[in-house]
Amino acid sequence: MKNIGSILLILFALVACENSTETVDTSTSEVVDPLPSWNDATSKEAIIAYVTDVTTTGSDNFIPIADRISTFDNDGNLWSEQPIYFQLYFVLDRIKEMAKDHPEWKDQQPFKAVLENDMETIKKSGMKGIGQLLMASHAGNTTEEFDAIVKDWVTTAKHPTKNVGYDELVYQPMLELLAYLRAKDFKTYIVSGGGVDFMRAFVSPVYGIPSEQIIGSRITTEFDYNDGNPRIIRTAGVDFNDDKDGKPLNIQKIIGKKPVFSSGNSDGDLQMMQWTASNNYESFMLYLHHTDAEREWAYDRESHIGKLDKGLDQALKDGWTVIDMKNDWKVIYPYEME
Amino acid sequence: MKNIGSILLILFALVACENSTETVDTSTSEVVDPLPSWNDATSKEAIIAYVTDVTTTGSDNFIPIADRISTFDNDGNLWSEQPIYFQLYFVLDRIKEMAKDHPEWKDQQPFKAVLENDMETIKKSGMKGIGQLLMASHAGNTTEEFDAIVKDWVTTAKHPTKNVGYDELVYQPMLELLAYLRAKDFKTYIVSGGGVDFMRAFVSPVYGIPSEQIIGSRITTEFDYNDGNPRIIRTAGVDFNDDKDGKPLNIQKIIGKKPVFSSGNSDGDLQMMQWTASNNYESFMLYLHHTDAEREWAYDRESHIGKLDKGLDQALKDGWTVIDMKNDWKVIYPYEME
Repeated sequence: MKNIGSILLILFALVACENSTETVDTSTSEVVDPLPSWNDATSKEAIIAYVTDVTTTGSDNFIPIADRISTFDNDGNLWSEQPIYFQLYFVLDRIKEMAKDHPEWKDQQPFKAVLENDMETIKKSGMKGIGQLLMASHAGNTTEEFDAIVKDWVTTAKHPTKNVGYDELVYQPMLELLAYLRAKDFKTYIVSGGGVDFMRAFVSPVYGIPSEQIIGSRITTEFDYNDGNPRIIRTAGVDFNDDKDGKPLNIQKIIGKKPVFSSGNSDGDLQMMQWTASNNYESFMLYLHHTDAEREWAYDRESHIGKLDKGLDQALKDGWTVIDMKNDWKVIYPYEME
Repeated sequence: MKNIGSILLILFALVACENSTETVDTSTSEVVDPLPSWNDATSKEAIIAYVTDVTTTGSDNFIPIADRISTFDNDGNLWSEQPIYFQLYFVLDRIKEMAKDHPEWKDQQPFKAVLENDMETIKKSGMKGIGQLLMASHAGNTTEEFDAIVKDWVTTAKHPTKNVGYDELVYQPMLELLAYLRAKDFKTYIVSGGGVDFMRAFVSPVYGIPSEQIIGSRITTEFDYNDGNPRIIRTAGVDFNDDKDGKPLNIQKIIGKKPVFSSGNSDGDLQMMQWTASNNYESFMLYLHHTDAEREWAYDRESHIGKLDKGLDQALKDGWTVIDMKNDWKVIYPYEME
């Protein structure tokens, strides 16, 4: 599982949106409970106290609207990431779909292992093997074609143990947090190690975040004029790995402002948290700790996916807010509320 | 001049903003004249007809707000770019400022030529020499330090022939066009070959465009945790050249949507125009033709800066709108109105 975890940090992620304008409700009337799926625990109280403080006119910690930048990791933070990253399920499904045009894959690793559902051999193929699967499933098409492929996949694919669509495995409490921040004039960004084009294909309506506020890992691309029908072709190289150091670097490249609010769940988010913590404005760092083996999954320091070790140490040392999923959240997924 | 023109395509450009939220005035009440500094010529009529068509509910060509993405080149399109790109003046001024800590530059080309205002030798130093000047003036500092350096420069620097600040040499008619599009719920982006951090340092209040809607060329950067005072260090490499093919590629990387409205003035903008022209929505391509030798500068097919040759051919062939600066604009710069 280690190698799959590693290679998928090269993957991509984000969310395109129905509406590119952030909510601009500047009324000061208070919502009765902006986070109804959160228990009245420390994490909820800390979030509301912070948001109220920095958005109240006259507060010493008031932050102008233009600087209310919030950044959210995706895998394991806005949706689940177990037993393997959801984008890897897309890779496996896509390879099987493409196999009809690649009869040679029946005898060629690591493709053979995918076709035989042989996860052990896939894992053993390491970075090189999984890199081959990744590029075979993600490159060699245009941006428009890839978008259609992912959209099509999402409509039918089911999570192997939860048996619901992947886009149903988003966290209801986090949807409420995103909406709460937008209602308070924060811009909400996704900053994920997942593939940006993969995320953009389907996540906007789910999270309410437009494509231009989705930042993720990318493969290389080329522009082709194509005799007047221009297209952008996805080629088999890594353009940017939006993880660890890559997160603050990409935030600076693309947003050009330091976030005041960051939310993540693994050591891959630590540099984004550190960058946010150095803001001259009062800032807020939020770690999600997966403690719920019954309703979701429980993992942290020893996990090969979403490892939370150094990040947890720094959160405890520096007083960042840590969500205890099991005790802080009333529900995990939206479908539990139906 | 050819080499300076070439290397500066590796430069950077855009505009950070006071207010990150786009104007969200969705009223349908008509402004009497949204473009008062434009003469009642073909280009003005075409712009207003297009914007009215695609923003009127019930129109066959109606574009949802989330997809109203507009992209503007900066140099020679929103502000002047003659006799050399303004960012090159920053380079020359910065080298002179730094020379007190570099006594060796007195005898070392191309630095010696800068200190002696010897433009011919600078030009002859070619890509290599100008690259050295560029990196010496732009790299080796943190993002925060560079931002402060550019802000400081802008407050005092004057254009050599116009004798006003560089930020006063923006085009009044284009400021009106940007405001008009925002009033019609378009997101306005800068997509420039200029340096993104250079632009972000001072252009937002001028154009009303926030830093996250400024896309440009970039040098490489590194994240340094720095014992709890993290910083992003600008290093001496080219990270992305936001020109020609780079424009549609960066638009896809960062925005993830194809523009419906693009505005530029040179062949460096042609691929962005072609990409925009391929939108399934009705789209608008606008070229600015520098025809006013008296009030601004007149140049096109043979110019080493802002060369407009293939772009002009395609604009004429495909019926894109071309602004004739001399005849279409009542005033060029805002200060002419005082």
